[in-house]
Amino acid sequence: MGRMSYAELAEAARGQMGNCKACPVCDGRACHNCIPGPGAKGTGMVAIRNYEAWQSVMLHMDTIHEPYVPDTSVTLFGRKLSLPVMVGPLGDVNRHYGPKYDMETYNNVMLHATAAAGTLGWTGDGLAASLHEGACRAISGLDGCGICTIKPWSKDVVRDKLRIALAAHPVAVAMDIDGAGLPFLKGQQPPAGAKGVSQLREIAKACHAADTPFVLKGIMTERGAEKAMKAGADGIVVSNHGGRVQDGVEATATVLPEISRAVGDDLVVLVDGGIRSGVDVFRALALGANAVLMCRPFVVAMYGGGEQGVMDLLAQLQGELADTMEMCGAETVSDITDDLVSW
Amino acid sequence: MGRMSYAELAEAARGQMGNCKACPVCDGRACHNCIPGPGAKGTGMVAIRNYEAWQSVMLHMDTIHEPYVPDTSVTLFGRKLSLPVMVGPLGDVNRHYGPKYDMETYNNVMLHATAAAGTLGWTGDGLAASLHEGACRAISGLDGCGICTIKPWSKDVVRDKLRIALAAHPVAVAMDIDGAGLPFLKGQQPPAGAKGVSQLREIAKACHAADTPFVLKGIMTERGAEKAMKAGADGIVVSNHGGRVQDGVEATATVLPEISRAVGDDLVVLVDGGIRSGVDVFRALALGANAVLMCRPFVVAMYGGGEQGVMDLLAQLQGELADTMEMCGAETVSDITDDLVSW
Amino acid sequence: MGRMSYAELAEAARGQMGNCKACPVCDGRACHNCIPGPGAKGTGMVAIRNYEAWQSVMLHMDTIHEPYVPDTSVTLFGRKLSLPVMVGPLGDVNRHYGPKYDMETYNNVMLHATAAAGTLGWTGDGLAASLHEGACRAISGLDGCGICTIKPWSKDVVRDKLRIALAAHPVAVAMDIDGAGLPFLKGQQPPAGAKGVSQLREIAKACHAADTPFVLKGIMTERGAEKAMKAGADGIVVSNHGGRVQDGVEATATVLPEISRAVGDDLVVLVDGGIRSGVDVFRALALGANAVLMCRPFVVAMYGGGEQGVMDLLAQLQGELADTMEMCGAETVSDITDDLVSW
Amino acid sequence: MGRMSYAELAEAARGQMGNCKACPVCDGRACHNCIPGPGAKGTGMVAIRNYEAWQSVMLHMDTIHEPYVPDTSVTLFGRKLSLPVMVGPLGDVNRHYGPKYDMETYNNVMLHATAAAGTLGWTGDGLAASLHEGACRAISGLDGCGICTIKPWSKDVVRDKLRIALAAHPVAVAMDIDGAGLPFLKGQQPPAGAKGVSQLREIAKACHAADTPFVLKGIMTERGAEKAMKAGADGIVVSNHGGRVQDGVEATATVLPEISRAVGDDLVVLVDGGIRSGVDVFRALALGANAVLMCRPFVVAMYGGGEQGVMDLLAQLQGELADTMEMCGAETVSDITDDLVSW
Repeated sequence: MGRMSYAELAEAARGQMGNCKACPVCDGRACHNCIPGPGAKGTGMVAIRNYEAWQSVMLHMDTIHEPYVPDTSVTLFGRKLSLPVMVGPLGDVNRHYGPKYDMETYNNVMLHATAAAGTLGWTGDGLAASLHEGACRAISGLDGCGICTIKPWSKDVVRDKLRIALAAHPVAVAMDIDGAGLPFLKGQQPPAGAKGVSQLREIAKACHAADTPFVLKGIMTERGAEKAMKAGADGIVVSNHGGRVQDGVEATATVLPEISRAVGDDLVVLVDGGIRSGVDVFRALALGANAVLMCRPFVVAMYGGGEQGVMDLLAQLQGELADTMEMCGAETVSDITDDLVSW
Repeated sequence: MGRMSYAELAEAARGQMGNCKACPVCDGRACHNCIPGPGAKGTGMVAIRNYEAWQSVMLHMDTIHEPYVPDTSVTLFGRKLSLPVMVGPLGDVNRHYGPKYDMETYNNVMLHATAAAGTLGWTGDGLAASLHEGACRAISGLDGCGICTIKPWSKDVVRDKLRIALAAHPVAVAMDIDGAGLPFLKGQQPPAGAKGVSQLREIAKACHAADTPFVLKGIMTERGAEKAMKAGADGIVVSNHGGRVQDGVEATATVLPEISRAVGDDLVVLVDGGIRSGVDVFRALALGANAVLMCRPFVVAMYGGGEQGVMDLLAQLQGELADTMEMCGAETVSDITDDLVSW
Repeated sequence: MGRMSYAELAEAARGQMGNCKACPVCDGRACHNCIPGPGAKGTGMVAIRNYEAWQSVMLHMDTIHEPYVPDTSVTLFGRKLSLPVMVGPLGDVNRHYGPKYDMETYNNVMLHATAAAGTLGWTGDGLAASLHEGACRAISGLDGCGICTIKPWSKDVVRDKLRIALAAHPVAVAMDIDGAGLPFLKGQQPPAGAKGVSQLREIAKACHAADTPFVLKGIMTERGAEKAMKAGADGIVVSNHGGRVQDGVEATATVLPEISRAVGDDLVVLVDGGIRSGVDVFRALALGANAVLMCRPFVVAMYGGGEQGVMDLLAQLQGELADTMEMCGAETVSDITDDLVSW
Repeated sequence: MGRMSYAELAEAARGQMGNCKACPVCDGRACHNCIPGPGAKGTGMVAIRNYEAWQSVMLHMDTIHEPYVPDTSVTLFGRKLSLPVMVGPLGDVNRHYGPKYDMETYNNVMLHATAAAGTLGWTGDGLAASLHEGACRAISGLDGCGICTIKPWSKDVVRDKLRIALAAHPVAVAMDIDGAGLPFLKGQQPPAGAKGVSQLREIAKACHAADTPFVLKGIMTERGAEKAMKAGADGIVVSNHGGRVQDGVEATATVLPEISRAVGDDLVVLVDGGIRSGVDVFRALALGANAVLMCRPFVVAMYGGGEQGVMDLLAQLQGELADTMEMCGAETVSDITDDLVSW
C-alpha cells in the first residue's frame, strides 16, 4: 500500500473532524470564523489572507544547472532535521476537532511520527495542567525530540510549567506570547496575557541555565522581534496564531521579509500560517525563514491516516520542496535565497 | 441570561426590519441600493466601499509589553465617555425599517441605552417638526446627554430648530451638511441644502453663545474641513452619510488620514460609515479619529434586543476594542496611533 | 403619469430587444460578446472595462458652499445644449435589437426626443445608402439639429455621403474612424477602413467649406488625437466603439485624461463607453470631456418608453448630474474640473 | 462548407477529450490541476495566470493611417512563415486527451496542417522511443518542415535522440529543459532532468555541425536566458510548460519583456502559455517575442475538426492578428513594437 496524498488523507478524514470540513485545500474559507473549530477570529479573514499571501510570492524557475539530488535537511537549535517543516502546537483537539483523539493521544502519535520522519513536533498548552505534563512526558520519552509551548500564564504558573518542561530536555521551549488573545487566558488571577521584556528575560535565563533554547511565538512586527532579542530569546515564530487571536492583522508572509531582515542572523526565524505545500515552504525560506510550522493540515492527516498519515504528509511536503528546489536551482536549503522569488 | 452577541441580535431582528435583512455582517451588500431601506444611493457601492476600506487597514499585533487592563474611555467636548463609540442619528425609522418603532420611541430607547452605557446617542432630523422637538425633549430629560442633529434647512427653519436644540443643553449640536443630497430637502421654499461658510458661522456663534459645541457632519475633503474650521465648527464628522446622499465618493477610511492631518488638534474629528467591530473602531482611531459613530448596527440591535440590545452591542464593541488594544500594545485610547496600523 | 426611471424603462423593454437583456444596469456583463446583439468583440471585456473604469473615479463631495441651482447647460460647436449628454449613433437597430424598430423610425424618434430635450442625437451609417439618406433627411427636418456619422468608406463613397450630409446642415459631421474594425467594411472595393491624415484633411476642408464642424470618433491615444488635429478636425470622440471594433483596448475613462491634456482647448473632446448615470457624466467632464455620448441605454429607453422614454432618460441624467454638481460644489459645467475627482 | 470557428471546433470536440472539457475559452479554469488531462500542477493557478496576464496587456488602437493589407508573415530560423504562430509540442495525447488519437497520427495530422498553412508544428518527446522516431520520420517526410523537441534525458539518450532528429533535417531542434519537472523524468538511471551549460553546449555544437538551430524551451528568468546564450542556443521559448512542471511561477507574459530586453537580437525569442487569440499573438509580439507557440487549442481543433480544424484555427488566428494590426497601425509584424501596448 503506497503513501496517501493529502487529498486522500483529507477525504478519509472528512466527516470525522467536528467543524473542520477537511477541505482538499486548507485555505480558511470553509471554516471561516467557526470556533470551536479551526476558524479564525472575527471576520475570519486573517487565515484566508495567510494562505493567499504565499500564493502571491512568485518563484523563479531555472533548470539550466548541473543535475543534483536536492538536500532538504536543515540544522535548527543544533539538531539536524530531515526537512524544514515542523508540526505546530495544538491546545485542545477535542474542542476544535471532535472526540476522535484526546490531547495526550494526539501528542503522542504526532511526536512519534515527526521523530520517525526526522523532524520535530511542537506541543500545545491549555487550562488543564495534565495537558502540559503529558506533552513533556511524551517529549521526554523521545529523548527530548520535540518543542513544548507554554502559554503566557501568570509568573507563578509559568515558573512551574517551565520546571516541568526543562526536565524533559526538549529541543527548545516556546511561549506563544500572542496567546493573550485567547478567551480562556482572560480574567485569570493572577493575571495572564501579555508579558514585558523583563519577565520574558527571566524565562529565557531559566531556559539557558538548562541549556535549552527559548523561542517566542507570535511576533508580527520588527519592534516585536527587537523586543524578543532584548529578552534573550533564541528564536521567534512569525505567527498570528492562524488568525485565532486577533482579527485584522497582516498575513505572516507579508511581514516575514522585514522581520527577517531586522533580526539578521541573531535569531532563528520560523514562520507559520497558511503554509500548505512544499512550494509554500520554499517561499517561506526564500523570504527569510529558517524553517516553518504547519498545524491544521497535520490534524487532518492524523484523522485521515493516523501516525502514518502524518508521516505521509511530511514525505509529500519533502518531495514537493525537493522538486521545487531542483526547478529553481537550489541544491541545499541555504541556497533558497530571496533572489529566487518575486513578491 | 447573558449578553446577546451581535449575531444573536441580528438573528432575533431578522424579518421584522422591512427592507433591512439584519445580516450577520452589515456590509452593504444585501440592501445594495434599496431605499426605502438601509441601502445606498445609485449603484449602492459607497456603503460597500466604506465597509471594505476598514478591512484593508492592517493592525500591528505586538503582545510583548507589560500586562494592563486597557482603558477605552475618551473625553469628548469636555465629557468623558466609557468608549469612543456613539450611536449615529436616524431620521425616519418607520420609512426605512418598518413599523416596529416610531421615531420618538426609537430615540428615547437609544438615548437611555447610550447614557446608561456611559456614551452618547445622536438624534436625527426630518420633515416633521415634532421629530426634532421630541429628540430635544428626550435629550433634555437626560440632562443633555446626547447630540442633536439639524438638517441644512433654510435660514429661518434652522434658527427655530437651533433655539429648541440649545434649550435642551445637549453635549453638542450637529448639522449634517451633506443632507443636501437627500431628496426631501430639494425644492423647498426658502431653499434648503448646501450652506456657505458665512451662514454656518452664524450657527456656530449661536451655539457658542449657549456654550454648546457645533459639529459639521458630512466632511469628505481637506478643503471641506478647512471651511468647517473657518466657519468656527468645534468638530467634524468625516462621513458620506453611509452612501445615501451621493454615489461615487470615496470610503471614509480612505479620506480620514489626510483630513485628520489637515486639521491637527484644532477640531474634534469623528468618523462613520461601515464601522462594524471594535477592531474597526481601533482602525478609525489609529487613522486619526477621536471617536466614531455607528448607526445601522444599533438599529438592528434595538429591533433584536430593545434597550438591552443596544447596551449589549456597546459592551461587545468595548470588549473587542479592549482586546485589540491589549493585542497591539495600546493601554489608553491616546496610545492608538498610526504606527500601529498599515494602510 | 410621471417620468419613468431607467429601471422601469428597462423592465418595460425586457424581452423585446433580441439578444439585449435590457439589464437594470447596462454594464456589458450579460451580453458579453454576443453579436448580433449589443455585445463586445472577442472576450467581451472592453465593454465591461469601460463601465468599471468610470466606477473607479472617486468624487470629492463638499457641500459647504452657497446654495445654487446647478446649470447643466453646455455650448458645443456654437450650439447651447441643455445638458452635456448626446445620444450616440446606431447603425443597425434591427440586426442587433430585433424587429421592433427600423433604422428610419429609430432615428426619427430619437432625433425628435433629443431636440425636444434641448440636446442632440447622432445618426449612424451602414451598408444601405438609404440609412444615411434617411438620417440626413430627419436632421434636415429638425433644422439641422443632429450630428450625422459617416463610416470610413472609400474616397468616392465618402464624398457622395458627405455631400448629402452637408446639405442637411447638421450641427457637425462625424466619421467613426474606428469603424475599420467592423466586419462589413472589410474587403470592399475600392477599399474602406483606416484613413490617413491627408484624406481626412480633405473631408475636414469640405465640411469647413460648408461651415460645418468635422469630428473624428474612435480616438484612443494621444498620437491619434494629434493626427486628428493635423487633419483639421474640430473635435474628437474618445471611443473604442463600446468594445465592438477591437478586443484588448483600454477603457475610455483610462485614456481620456492624457488625451484631454494633450489637445488642450484646440479640440472639442467628447467621450463614450460605459457612461450610465449623471454621476458618470460628472466623472467624464472632470477628466476633461466637454460632453459625452451614450447609446445602448437610449435604445433600451426607446424600446421601453418610445420617444417619451428617451426624454425621461435624458431628464434623469440631467437630474443626477445636477445633484452631483450640488454635492461637489460645481455650479456650472465648467466648474467640473479634475480636482473634484481622484482616479 | 465554410471555416469552423474555434467555438464551433470546441463544441464539436466536447465530450471526446477525456479530462479536457473543450471549453469555449481555454483559460485553465475548468481543468484546474487535473492530470492526466490538460490541468496544471499543484494549485493549478499557473495556467490561469498565463491566460490572464495576456488579458491585462492593453492595446493602443489608432486607425488614422493609410489603408494597407497587413502582412502577418515572419522569418524564423531562415524560413518564412505565413503567420507568427506555431503549434506547440505534445508528449502523450492518449494519456491526457483520451483514445481518439495516438501520438503518431496526431503528429502526422498536425504537421501536415501546419505545413499546408505555411507555418511549423513542434513534436513532443516521451518515454517510448518510438514517439520521437515517428515524429522525426514525419518531419523528414515533409522536407524538414517541423521542429522536434527532445527532453532532458541522460547524456547517452540525448545523443541517440539527437542523431535521429538531425537526420530528419528539421527547421530546428529544441530541448524542453523545464521537463525536469515532469514525474516520468525523475529517478531515471542514468539521471535525467536539469542540465548545466557545458552539457547544453555540446548539444548545441552537434546541432550546429548539422546546420540546425538549437532552441531551449522553458526559460523564465533573465539569468536562464543568459545561460542559454552561453550554451550557444539560437533561440529560447519563454515558457512554464503551461503550468505543468512547477506551481507558483510567474505568467510568461510577465517575464517576457525583461527577458526579451536582456537577450536583444542575439536570440530568437518565442513564448507560449495561455495565448488564445490573434489579439494575444499581437500582445506577445509587442512584448518582444518573434513568434508564439500554442498547443492546447490545437488539440481541441484537431479533435473537433481534424486536419482542417487545425488549419481553420490557424486561419482564424491569422485573421484576428491582421485585424488587430490594422486597428493599431502595424503594417508588418516588425511594426508591432512595445509602444503599441501598455502593461
